[in-house]
Amino acid sequence: MFSARYQVRVQWGDCDGANIIFYPNYFKMFDTSTHNLFEAAGVPIPELMEKYDFIGMPLVDTHSSFKSASRWGDRLEVESHVAEWRRRSFVVKHVIWNGDVPAVEGEEIRVWAKRPPGDPNGLVAGEIPADLITLFERR
Amino acid sequence: MFSARYQVRVQWGDCDGANIIFYPNYFKMFDTSTHNLFEAAGVPIPELMEKYDFIGMPLVDTHSSFKSASRWGDRLEVESHVAEWRRRSFVVKHVIWNGDVPAVEGEEIRVWAKRPPGDPNGLVAGEIPADLITLFERR
Amino acid sequence: MFSARYQVRVQWGDCDGANIIFYPNYFKMFDTSTHNLFEAAGVPIPELMEKYDFIGMPLVDTHSSFKSASRWGDRLEVESHVAEWRRRSFVVKHVIWNGDVPAVEGEEIRVWAKRPPGDPNGLVAGEIPADLITLFERR
Amino acid sequence: MFSARYQVRVQWGDCDGANIIFYPNYFKMFDTSTHNLFEAAGVPIPELMEKYDFIGMPLVDTHSSFKSASRWGDRLEVESHVAEWRRRSFVVKHVIWNGDVPAVEGEEIRVWAKRPPGDPNGLVAGEIPADLITLFERR
Repeated sequence: MFSARYQVRVQWGDCDGANIIFYPNYFKMFDTSTHNLFEAAGVPIPELMEKYDFIGMPLVDTHSSFKSASRWGDRLEVESHVAEWRRRSFVVKHVIWNGDVPAVEGEEIRVWAKRPPGDPNGLVAGEIPADLITLFERR
Repeated sequence: MFSARYQVRVQWGDCDGANIIFYPNYFKMFDTSTHNLFEAAGVPIPELMEKYDFIGMPLVDTHSSFKSASRWGDRLEVESHVAEWRRRSFVVKHVIWNGDVPAVEGEEIRVWAKRPPGDPNGLVAGEIPADLITLFERR
Repeated sequence: MFSARYQVRVQWGDCDGANIIFYPNYFKMFDTSTHNLFEAAGVPIPELMEKYDFIGMPLVDTHSSFKSASRWGDRLEVESHVAEWRRRSFVVKHVIWNGDVPAVEGEEIRVWAKRPPGDPNGLVAGEIPADLITLFERR
Repeated sequence: MFSARYQVRVQWGDCDGANIIFYPNYFKMFDTSTHNLFEAAGVPIPELMEKYDFIGMPLVDTHSSFKSASRWGDRLEVESHVAEWRRRSFVVKHVIWNGDVPAVEGEEIRVWAKRPPGDPNGLVAGEIPADLITLFERR
Protein backbone atom coordinates (compact mmCIF):
# COMPACT_ATOMS: atom_id res chain seq x y z
CA MET A 1 0.00 0.00 0.00
CA PHE A 2 1.49 3.30 -1.06
CA SER A 3 2.16 5.61 1.87
CA ALA A 4 4.03 8.87 2.35
CA ARG A 5 5.77 10.40 5.32
CA TYR A 6 5.73 14.06 6.25
CA GLN A 7 8.09 15.47 8.87
CA VAL A 8 7.11 18.25 11.19
CA ARG A 9 8.58 19.70 14.34
CA VAL A 10 6.47 20.78 17.28
CA GLN A 11 6.84 24.54 17.60
CA TRP A 12 6.37 26.80 20.63
CA GLY A 13 3.20 28.26 19.13
CA ASP A 14 1.71 24.78 18.58
CA CYS A 15 1.68 24.14 22.32
CA ASP A 16 -0.68 25.29 25.02
CA GLY A 17 -0.28 26.19 28.67
CA ALA A 18 0.28 22.52 29.56
CA ASN A 19 3.35 22.54 27.27
CA ILE A 20 1.89 19.91 24.95
CA ILE A 21 0.47 20.31 21.44
CA PHE A 22 -2.91 22.02 21.40
CA TYR A 23 -4.84 19.12 19.88
CA PRO A 24 -6.48 20.86 16.87
CA ASN A 25 -2.94 21.27 15.54
CA TYR A 26 -2.75 17.50 14.97
CA PHE A 27 -5.53 17.89 12.39
CA LYS A 28 -3.48 20.53 10.59
CA MET A 29 -0.76 17.87 10.38
CA PHE A 30 -3.26 15.35 8.99
CA ASP A 31 -4.39 17.86 6.38
CA THR A 32 -0.86 18.70 5.32
CA SER A 33 0.09 15.04 5.23
CA THR A 34 -2.89 14.23 2.99
CA HIS A 35 -1.77 16.94 0.57
CA ASN A 36 1.79 15.61 0.78
CA LEU A 37 0.55 12.07 0.05
CA PHE A 38 -1.05 13.15 -3.22
CA GLU A 39 2.08 15.03 -4.20
CA ALA A 40 4.23 12.00 -3.38
CA ALA A 41 1.94 9.93 -5.60
CA GLY A 42 2.75 12.28 -8.48
CA VAL A 43 -0.58 14.11 -8.46
CA PRO A 44 -0.26 17.37 -6.50
CA ILE A 45 -3.70 18.64 -5.60
CA PRO A 46 -3.31 21.96 -7.47
CA GLU A 47 -2.71 19.91 -10.64
CA LEU A 48 -5.78 17.79 -9.92
CA MET A 49 -7.78 20.97 -9.60
CA GLU A 50 -6.66 22.05 -13.05
CA LYS A 51 -6.99 18.66 -14.71
CA TYR A 52 -10.38 17.71 -13.31
CA ASP A 53 -13.35 19.85 -12.43
CA PHE A 54 -12.30 19.41 -8.79
CA ILE A 55 -12.32 22.03 -6.04
CA GLY A 56 -11.14 20.28 -2.91
CA MET A 57 -11.47 17.41 -0.50
CA PRO A 58 -13.63 18.55 2.40
CA LEU A 59 -14.01 16.24 5.36
CA VAL A 60 -17.18 14.32 6.13
CA ASP A 61 -15.84 12.44 9.12
CA THR A 62 -12.69 12.17 11.22
CA HIS A 63 -11.61 10.10 14.16
CA SER A 64 -8.42 10.23 16.21
CA SER A 65 -6.86 8.48 19.18
CA PHE A 66 -4.20 10.32 21.09
CA LYS A 67 -1.67 7.83 22.44
CA SER A 68 1.04 9.99 23.95
CA ALA A 69 1.63 13.70 24.40
CA SER A 70 3.92 15.58 22.02
CA ARG A 71 5.98 18.43 23.39
CA TRP A 72 7.70 21.55 22.15
CA GLY A 73 10.70 20.63 20.02
CA ASP A 74 9.65 17.03 19.33
CA ARG A 75 10.28 15.88 15.78
CA LEU A 76 7.23 14.06 14.48
CA GLU A 77 6.62 12.04 11.35
CA VAL A 78 3.14 11.64 9.89
CA GLU A 79 2.70 8.42 7.92
CA SER A 80 -0.35 8.48 5.69
CA HIS A 81 -2.05 6.28 3.12
CA VAL A 82 -5.39 5.97 1.38
CA ALA A 83 -7.01 3.01 3.13
CA GLU A 84 -10.10 2.87 0.95
CA TRP A 85 -11.42 4.40 -2.25
CA ARG A 86 -15.18 4.74 -2.45
CA ARG A 87 -17.16 6.14 -5.35
CA ARG A 88 -17.32 9.74 -4.18
CA SER A 89 -15.18 9.66 -1.07
CA PHE A 90 -12.00 8.10 0.29
CA VAL A 91 -10.47 7.23 3.64
CA VAL A 92 -7.01 8.45 4.60
CA LYS A 93 -5.30 6.83 7.59
CA HIS A 94 -2.58 8.59 9.52
CA VAL A 95 -0.11 7.61 12.21
CA ILE A 96 1.91 10.39 13.80
CA TRP A 97 5.17 8.94 15.06
CA ASN A 98 7.20 10.57 17.80
CA GLY A 99 10.37 8.58 17.33
CA ASP A 100 9.28 4.93 17.71
CA VAL A 101 6.16 5.83 19.64
CA PRO A 102 2.82 6.37 17.92
CA ALA A 103 1.60 9.69 19.28
CA VAL A 104 -1.66 9.84 17.34
CA GLU A 105 -3.63 7.53 15.09
CA GLY A 106 -6.44 8.91 13.02
CA GLU A 107 -8.48 8.79 9.88
CA GLU A 108 -10.13 11.29 7.64
CA ILE A 109 -13.04 10.54 5.32
CA ARG A 110 -12.99 13.10 2.53
CA VAL A 111 -15.28 13.73 -0.41
CA TRP A 112 -14.22 14.56 -3.92
CA ALA A 113 -15.85 17.98 -4.23
CA LYS A 114 -17.02 19.74 -7.37
CA ARG A 115 -18.87 22.95 -8.05
CA PRO A 116 -22.48 22.29 -8.93
CA PRO A 117 -23.34 23.92 -12.29
CA GLY A 118 -24.53 27.47 -11.81
CA ASP A 119 -23.58 27.79 -8.14
CA PRO A 120 -20.15 29.43 -7.72
CA ASN A 121 -20.21 28.90 -3.93
CA GLY A 122 -21.69 25.41 -3.84
CA LEU A 123 -19.98 22.10 -3.15
CA VAL A 124 -21.19 18.66 -4.23
CA ALA A 125 -19.57 15.25 -4.01
CA GLY A 126 -18.49 14.02 -7.43
CA GLU A 127 -17.21 10.73 -8.74
CA ILE A 128 -13.52 10.10 -8.15
CA PRO A 129 -11.67 9.69 -11.48
CA ALA A 130 -10.84 6.02 -12.04
CA ASP A 131 -7.35 6.82 -13.35
CA LEU A 132 -6.49 8.54 -10.07
CA ILE A 133 -7.44 5.45 -8.08
CA THR A 134 -5.47 3.25 -10.46
CA LEU A 135 -2.44 5.47 -10.02
CA PHE A 136 -2.47 4.97 -6.25
CA GLU A 137 -3.16 1.24 -6.49
CA ARG A 138 -0.30 0.61 -8.92
CA ARG A 139 2.29 2.22 -6.67
CA MET B 1 -28.77 17.09 31.08
CA PHE B 2 -26.88 20.34 31.66
CA SER B 3 -25.59 21.86 28.46
CA ALA B 4 -24.07 25.18 27.47
CA ARG B 5 -24.01 27.13 24.25
CA TYR B 6 -21.09 29.09 22.90
CA GLN B 7 -21.48 31.52 20.00
CA VAL B 8 -18.78 32.05 17.44
CA ARG B 9 -18.65 33.70 14.06
CA VAL B 10 -16.72 32.27 11.13
CA GLN B 11 -13.92 34.71 10.36
CA TRP B 12 -12.00 35.26 7.12
CA GLY B 13 -8.87 33.70 8.62
CA ASP B 14 -10.78 30.56 9.67
CA CYS B 15 -11.52 29.75 6.04
CA ASP B 16 -9.37 28.17 3.36
CA GLY B 17 -9.09 28.60 -0.37
CA ALA B 18 -12.45 26.83 -0.86
CA ASN B 19 -14.08 29.60 1.22
CA ILE B 20 -15.23 27.17 3.90
CA ILE B 21 -13.85 26.66 7.42
CA PHE B 22 -10.50 24.91 7.47
CA TYR B 23 -11.65 21.87 9.44
CA PRO B 24 -9.09 21.88 12.31
CA ASN B 25 -10.73 25.14 13.36
CA TYR B 26 -13.86 23.19 14.36
CA PHE B 27 -11.79 21.47 17.04
CA LYS B 28 -10.73 24.85 18.40
CA MET B 29 -14.46 25.55 18.76
CA PHE B 30 -14.95 22.23 20.57
CA ASP B 31 -12.11 23.06 22.94
CA THR B 32 -13.43 26.53 23.68
CA SER B 33 -16.94 25.21 24.13
CA THR B 34 -15.74 22.59 26.63
CA HIS B 35 -14.05 25.33 28.65
CA ASN B 36 -17.21 27.42 28.38
CA LEU B 37 -19.32 24.47 29.58
CA PHE B 38 -17.31 24.17 32.80
CA GLU B 39 -17.54 27.89 33.38
CA ALA B 40 -21.31 27.82 32.79
CA ALA B 41 -21.53 25.02 35.36
CA GLY B 42 -19.92 27.35 37.89
CA VAL B 43 -16.50 25.72 37.86
CA PRO B 44 -14.17 27.61 35.52
CA ILE B 45 -11.18 25.44 34.71
CA PRO B 46 -8.60 27.89 36.14
CA GLU B 47 -10.43 27.56 39.48
CA LEU B 48 -10.41 23.77 39.21
CA MET B 49 -6.66 23.93 38.62
CA GLU B 50 -6.25 25.87 41.85
CA LYS B 51 -8.70 23.85 43.92
CA TYR B 52 -7.60 20.37 42.84
CA ASP B 53 -4.19 19.08 41.89
CA PHE B 54 -5.38 19.28 38.27
CA ILE B 55 -3.38 20.44 35.25
CA GLY B 56 -5.69 20.07 32.30
CA MET B 57 -7.97 17.84 30.24
CA PRO B 58 -5.94 16.42 27.35
CA LEU B 59 -7.76 14.44 24.70
CA VAL B 60 -7.52 10.68 24.35
CA ASP B 61 -10.00 10.36 21.53
CA THR B 62 -12.17 12.49 19.29
CA HIS B 63 -14.65 11.85 16.54
CA SER B 64 -16.53 14.28 14.30
CA SER B 65 -19.03 14.19 11.48
CA PHE B 66 -19.21 17.16 9.19
CA LYS B 67 -22.79 17.63 8.00
CA SER B 68 -22.72 20.90 6.11
CA ALA B 69 -20.08 23.46 5.20
CA SER B 70 -19.73 26.68 7.20
CA ARG B 71 -18.71 29.82 5.40
CA TRP B 72 -17.11 33.15 6.14
CA GLY B 73 -19.49 35.31 8.17
CA ASP B 74 -21.74 32.47 9.35
CA ARG B 75 -22.84 32.73 12.99
CA LEU B 76 -22.44 29.36 14.66
CA GLU B 77 -23.54 28.08 18.04
CA VAL B 78 -21.75 25.19 19.73
CA GLU B 79 -24.01 23.22 22.09
CA SER B 80 -22.03 21.02 24.46
CA HIS B 81 -22.68 18.69 27.38
CA VAL B 82 -20.88 16.00 29.33
CA ALA B 83 -22.45 12.79 28.04
CA GLU B 84 -20.62 10.45 30.40
CA TRP B 85 -18.42 10.65 33.45
CA ARG B 86 -15.95 7.79 33.86
CA ARG B 87 -13.50 7.31 36.70
CA ARG B 88 -10.55 9.13 35.12
CA SER B 89 -12.05 10.47 31.91
CA PHE B 90 -15.23 11.98 30.56
CA VAL B 91 -17.03 12.35 27.25
CA VAL B 92 -18.11 15.75 25.94
CA LYS B 93 -20.60 15.83 23.07
CA HIS B 94 -20.87 18.83 20.79
CA VAL B 95 -23.25 19.96 18.09
CA ILE B 96 -22.26 23.00 16.05
CA TRP B 97 -25.43 24.67 14.80
CA ASN B 98 -25.47 26.94 11.76
CA GLY B 99 -28.91 28.44 12.25
CA ASP B 100 -31.22 25.41 12.41
CA VAL B 101 -28.82 23.18 10.55
CA PRO B 102 -26.32 20.98 12.40
CA ALA B 103 -22.99 21.74 10.72
CA VAL B 104 -20.85 19.39 12.82
CA GLU B 105 -21.45 16.73 15.45
CA GLY B 106 -18.57 15.49 17.51
CA GLU B 107 -17.30 14.13 20.77
CA GLU B 108 -14.17 14.48 22.79
CA ILE B 109 -12.95 11.96 25.36
CA ARG B 110 -10.74 13.79 27.82
CA VAL B 111 -8.72 12.63 30.80
CA TRP B 112 -8.47 14.38 34.13
CA ALA B 113 -4.73 15.05 34.15
CA LYS B 114 -2.43 15.47 37.12
CA ARG B 115 1.28 15.90 37.53
CA PRO B 116 2.91 12.69 38.67
CA PRO B 117 4.93 13.32 41.87
CA GLY B 118 8.49 14.33 41.07
CA ASP B 119 7.95 14.87 37.34
CA PRO B 120 7.27 18.54 36.52
CA ASN B 121 6.65 17.74 32.84
CA GLY B 122 4.68 14.51 33.24
CA LEU B 123 0.96 13.95 32.83
CA VAL B 124 -1.06 11.11 34.37
CA ALA B 125 -4.80 10.46 34.45
CA GLY B 126 -6.21 11.01 37.94
CA GLU B 127 -9.55 10.30 39.53
CA ILE B 128 -12.24 12.89 38.80
CA PRO B 129 -13.46 14.53 42.04
CA ALA B 130 -16.90 13.16 42.99
CA ASP B 131 -18.18 16.59 43.98
CA LEU B 132 -17.48 17.91 40.48
CA ILE B 133 -19.55 15.13 38.90
CA THR B 134 -22.37 15.75 41.41
CA LEU B 135 -22.34 19.42 40.53
CA PHE B 136 -22.93 18.67 36.85
CA GLU B 137 -25.55 16.01 37.56
CA ARG B 138 -27.61 18.23 39.84
CA ARG B 139 -27.92 21.00 37.29
CA MET C 1 -13.79 59.55 13.38
CA PHE C 2 -15.89 56.43 12.90
CA SER C 3 -14.60 53.48 14.89
CA ALA C 4 -15.93 50.04 15.77
CA ARG C 5 -15.31 47.71 18.69
CA TYR C 6 -14.99 43.98 18.51
CA GLN C 7 -15.06 41.80 21.63
CA VAL C 8 -13.02 38.67 21.94
CA ARG C 9 -12.09 36.41 24.81
CA VAL C 10 -8.63 34.89 25.20
CA GLN C 11 -9.04 31.14 24.84
CA TRP C 12 -6.83 28.32 26.12
CA GLY C 13 -5.67 27.52 22.59
CA ASP C 14 -4.65 31.15 21.97
CA CYS C 15 -2.02 30.95 24.70
CA ASP C 16 1.42 29.44 24.72
CA GLY C 17 3.52 27.69 27.34
CA ALA C 18 4.05 31.01 29.16
CA ASN C 19 0.25 31.23 29.65
CA ILE C 20 -0.02 34.44 27.63
CA ILE C 21 -1.39 34.97 24.13
CA PHE C 22 0.88 33.62 21.41
CA TYR C 23 1.51 36.94 19.70
CA PRO C 24 0.51 36.08 16.09
CA ASN C 25 -3.01 35.66 17.46
CA TYR C 26 -3.19 39.42 18.04
CA PHE C 27 -2.95 39.88 14.28
CA LYS C 28 -5.92 37.54 13.81
CA MET C 29 -7.80 39.93 16.11
CA PHE C 30 -6.68 42.90 14.00
CA ASP C 31 -7.87 41.17 10.84
CA THR C 32 -11.24 40.26 12.32
CA SER C 33 -11.66 43.75 13.72
CA THR C 34 -10.94 45.31 10.32
CA HIS C 35 -13.65 43.14 8.77
CA ASN C 36 -15.97 44.05 11.64
CA LEU C 37 -15.24 47.76 11.09
CA PHE C 38 -16.40 47.59 7.47
CA GLU C 39 -19.51 45.71 8.49
CA ALA C 40 -20.26 48.27 11.21
CA ALA C 41 -19.90 50.99 8.56
CA GLY C 42 -22.66 49.29 6.58
CA VAL C 43 -20.39 47.81 3.92
CA PRO C 44 -19.61 44.17 4.77
CA ILE C 45 -16.59 43.04 2.77
CA PRO C 46 -18.44 40.20 0.99
CA GLU C 47 -20.85 42.85 -0.35
CA LEU C 48 -17.94 45.04 -1.46
CA MET C 49 -16.54 42.05 -3.32
CA GLU C 50 -19.79 41.69 -5.20
CA LYS C 51 -20.38 45.37 -5.82
CA TYR C 52 -16.88 46.31 -6.93
CA ASP C 53 -14.30 44.30 -8.81
CA PHE C 54 -12.56 43.81 -5.47
CA ILE C 55 -10.90 40.64 -4.17
CA GLY C 56 -9.49 41.51 -0.78
CA MET C 57 -7.35 43.80 1.34
CA PRO C 58 -3.89 42.22 1.62
CA LEU C 59 -1.40 43.83 3.96
CA VAL C 60 1.60 45.80 2.79
CA ASP C 61 2.81 46.84 6.21
CA THR C 62 1.99 46.34 9.85
CA HIS C 63 3.38 47.58 13.12
CA SER C 64 2.43 46.71 16.69
CA SER C 65 3.48 47.60 20.21
CA PHE C 66 2.68 45.15 22.95
CA LYS C 67 1.97 47.04 26.16
CA SER C 68 0.82 44.37 28.58
CA ALA C 69 0.35 40.60 28.46
CA SER C 70 -3.10 39.11 27.93
CA ARG C 71 -3.92 35.86 29.64
CA TRP C 72 -6.29 32.94 29.26
CA GLY C 73 -9.85 34.05 30.04
CA ASP C 74 -9.22 37.79 29.62
CA ARG C 75 -12.00 39.65 27.84
CA LEU C 76 -10.49 41.98 25.26
CA GLU C 77 -11.98 44.70 23.11
CA VAL C 78 -10.42 45.72 19.81
CA GLU C 79 -11.15 49.35 18.88
CA SER C 80 -10.43 50.06 15.22
CA HIS C 81 -10.74 52.91 12.77
CA VAL C 82 -9.46 53.92 9.35
CA ALA C 83 -6.82 56.54 10.14
CA GLU C 84 -6.04 57.43 6.54
CA TRP C 85 -7.41 56.79 3.07
CA ARG C 86 -4.82 56.87 0.30
CA ARG C 87 -5.46 56.33 -3.38
CA ARG C 88 -4.89 52.59 -3.49
CA SER C 89 -4.34 51.77 0.16
CA PHE C 90 -5.58 52.68 3.61
CA VAL C 91 -4.34 52.63 7.19
CA VAL C 92 -6.32 50.92 9.95
CA LYS C 93 -5.38 51.68 13.55
CA HIS C 94 -6.22 49.29 16.35
CA VAL C 95 -6.10 49.40 20.13
CA ILE C 96 -6.72 46.17 21.99
CA TRP C 97 -8.12 47.00 25.41
CA ASN C 98 -7.89 44.63 28.35
CA GLY C 99 -10.34 46.37 30.63
CA ASP C 100 -8.97 49.92 30.96
CA VAL C 101 -5.46 48.90 29.99
CA PRO C 102 -4.24 49.07 26.38
CA ALA C 103 -2.73 45.64 25.77
CA VAL C 104 -1.68 46.22 22.16
CA GLU C 105 -1.57 49.15 19.77
CA GLY C 106 -1.05 48.55 16.10
CA GLU C 107 -1.69 49.54 12.55
CA GLU C 108 -2.23 47.76 9.29
CA ILE C 109 -1.63 49.26 5.87
CA ARG C 110 -3.80 47.42 3.38
CA VAL C 111 -4.18 47.67 -0.36
CA TRP C 112 -7.42 47.57 -2.28
CA ALA C 113 -6.74 44.48 -4.38
CA LYS C 114 -8.18 43.59 -7.76
CA ARG C 115 -7.59 40.79 -10.21
CA PRO C 116 -5.49 41.96 -13.14
CA PRO C 117 -7.29 41.22 -16.43
CA GLY C 118 -6.42 37.76 -17.71
CA ASP C 119 -4.66 36.54 -14.56
CA PRO C 120 -7.02 34.55 -12.32
CA ASN C 121 -4.35 34.20 -9.60
CA GLY C 122 -2.89 37.70 -9.75
CA LEU C 123 -3.36 40.59 -7.35
CA VAL C 124 -2.91 44.29 -8.15
CA ALA C 125 -3.64 47.39 -6.13
CA GLY C 126 -6.62 49.27 -7.52
CA GLU C 127 -8.15 52.65 -6.83
CA ILE C 128 -10.40 52.79 -3.76
CA PRO C 129 -13.97 53.78 -4.73
CA ALA C 130 -14.62 57.40 -3.74
CA ASP C 131 -18.12 56.60 -2.46
CA LEU C 132 -16.69 54.11 0.02
CA ILE C 133 -14.35 56.74 1.46
CA THR C 134 -17.20 59.24 1.65
CA LEU C 135 -19.32 56.71 3.51
CA PHE C 136 -16.68 56.36 6.23
CA GLU C 137 -16.01 60.09 6.44
CA ARG C 138 -19.66 60.99 6.86
CA ARG C 139 -20.18 58.68 9.83
CA MET D 1 26.71 38.54 11.72
CA PHE D 2 25.44 35.10 12.67
CA SER D 3 22.18 34.22 10.97
CA ALA D 4 20.13 31.07 10.57
CA ARG D 5 17.72 29.91 7.91
CA TYR D 6 14.50 28.04 8.51
CA GLN D 7 12.60 26.37 5.67
CA VAL D 8 8.85 26.20 5.60
CA ARG D 9 6.29 25.34 2.97
CA VAL D 10 3.03 27.22 2.55
CA GLN D 11 0.26 24.78 3.38
CA TRP D 12 -3.39 24.79 2.31
CA GLY D 13 -4.50 25.69 5.82
CA ASP D 14 -2.11 28.66 5.94
CA CYS D 15 -3.98 30.36 3.11
CA ASP D 16 -7.22 32.28 3.05
CA GLY D 17 -9.99 32.69 0.54
CA ALA D 18 -7.74 34.82 -1.69
CA ASN D 19 -5.38 31.80 -1.99
CA ILE D 20 -2.49 33.65 -0.33
CA ILE D 21 -1.05 33.25 3.16
CA PHE D 22 -3.31 34.64 5.87
CA TYR D 23 -0.87 37.25 7.15
CA PRO D 24 -0.77 36.36 10.88
CA ASN D 25 0.85 33.10 9.78
CA TYR D 26 3.98 35.04 8.78
CA PHE D 27 4.43 35.93 12.44
CA LYS D 28 4.28 32.25 13.35
CA MET D 29 7.18 31.83 10.93
CA PHE D 30 9.06 34.67 12.60
CA ASP D 31 8.53 33.08 16.00
CA THR D 32 9.67 29.67 14.84
CA SER D 33 12.67 31.16 13.07
CA THR D 34 13.71 33.03 16.22
CA HIS D 35 13.62 29.77 18.16
CA ASN D 36 15.54 28.08 15.37
CA LEU D 37 18.15 30.86 15.44
CA PHE D 38 18.91 30.25 19.11
CA GLU D 39 19.13 26.52 18.51
CA ALA D 40 21.48 27.08 15.56
CA ALA D 41 23.64 29.24 17.85
CA GLY D 42 23.99 26.26 20.18
CA VAL D 43 21.62 27.55 22.85
CA PRO D 44 18.16 26.02 22.38
CA ILE D 45 15.61 28.02 24.33
CA PRO D 46 14.49 25.10 26.52
CA GLU D 47 18.12 24.83 27.69
CA LEU D 48 18.26 28.58 28.35
CA MET D 49 15.13 28.21 30.46
CA GLU D 50 16.83 25.58 32.57
CA LYS D 51 20.20 27.28 32.82
CA TYR D 52 18.99 30.80 33.58
CA ASP D 53 15.97 31.95 35.52
CA PHE D 54 14.37 32.68 32.15
CA ILE D 55 10.77 32.07 31.12
CA GLY D 56 10.44 33.33 27.58
CA MET D 57 10.92 36.12 25.08
CA PRO D 58 7.63 37.98 24.77
CA LEU D 59 7.33 40.66 22.11
CA VAL D 60 7.26 44.36 22.87
CA ASP D 61 7.19 45.54 19.29
CA THR D 62 7.05 44.17 15.78
CA HIS D 63 7.05 45.63 12.32
CA SER D 64 6.68 43.94 8.93
CA SER D 65 6.59 44.89 5.28
CA PHE D 66 4.89 42.53 2.90
CA LYS D 67 6.65 42.67 -0.47
CA SER D 68 5.01 39.92 -2.48
CA ALA D 69 2.23 37.41 -1.90
CA SER D 70 3.06 33.81 -0.99
CA ARG D 71 0.81 31.07 -2.25
CA TRP D 72 -0.15 27.54 -1.40
CA GLY D 73 2.77 25.18 -2.07
CA ASP D 74 5.46 27.88 -2.15
CA ARG D 75 8.70 26.90 -0.43
CA LEU D 76 9.86 29.76 1.78
CA GLU D 77 13.07 30.35 3.67
CA VAL D 78 13.18 32.59 6.72
CA GLU D 79 16.59 34.18 7.30
CA SER D 80 16.98 35.59 10.79
CA HIS D 81 19.61 37.27 12.91
CA VAL D 82 19.89 39.27 16.10
CA ALA D 83 20.44 42.82 14.85
CA GLU D 84 20.92 44.39 18.27
CA TRP D 85 21.39 43.32 21.86
CA ARG D 86 20.11 45.77 24.45
CA ARG D 87 20.28 45.37 28.21
CA ARG D 88 16.90 43.71 28.70
CA SER D 89 15.70 43.26 25.15
CA PHE D 90 16.97 42.38 21.70
CA VAL D 91 16.01 42.95 18.08
CA VAL D 92 15.59 40.04 15.67
CA LYS D 93 15.45 40.81 11.95
CA HIS D 94 13.83 38.45 9.49
CA VAL D 95 13.63 38.17 5.74
CA ILE D 96 11.26 35.59 4.30
CA TRP D 97 12.54 34.54 0.91
CA ASN D 98 10.31 33.03 -1.76
CA GLY D 99 13.02 31.78 -4.09
CA ASP D 100 15.08 34.89 -4.90
CA VAL D 101 12.26 37.25 -4.04
CA PRO D 102 11.89 38.76 -0.56
CA ALA D 103 8.27 38.09 0.37
CA VAL D 104 8.36 39.69 3.81
CA GLU D 105 10.81 41.75 5.85
CA GLY D 106 10.23 42.24 9.52
CA GLU D 107 11.63 42.69 12.96
CA GLU D 108 10.70 41.62 16.44
CA ILE D 109 11.79 43.36 19.62
CA ARG D 110 11.67 40.84 22.42
CA VAL D 111 12.32 41.11 26.13
CA TRP D 112 14.24 38.64 28.24
CA ALA D 113 11.46 37.65 30.65
CA LYS D 114 11.77 36.37 34.19
CA ARG D 115 9.30 35.52 36.89
CA PRO D 116 9.20 38.25 39.54
CA PRO D 117 9.82 36.73 43.00
CA GLY D 118 6.60 35.62 44.64
CA ASP D 119 4.40 35.98 41.54
CA PRO D 120 4.02 32.66 39.68
CA ASN D 121 2.03 34.31 36.87
CA GLY D 122 4.04 37.52 36.54
CA LEU D 123 6.53 38.51 33.85
CA VAL D 124 9.30 41.10 34.18
CA ALA D 125 12.13 42.05 31.85
CA GLY D 126 15.48 40.85 33.19
CA GLU D 127 19.06 41.48 32.20
CA ILE D 128 20.29 39.38 29.28
CA PRO D 129 23.22 37.17 30.35
CA ALA D 130 26.50 38.60 28.99
CA ASP D 131 27.79 35.16 28.03
CA LEU D 132 24.79 34.61 25.78
CA ILE D 133 25.48 37.84 23.89
CA THR D 134 29.17 36.95 23.59
CA LEU D 135 28.24 33.57 22.16
CA PHE D 136 26.23 35.17 19.36
CA GLU D 137 28.87 37.84 18.68
CA ARG D 138 31.71 35.35 18.38
CA ARG D 139 29.92 33.27 15.75
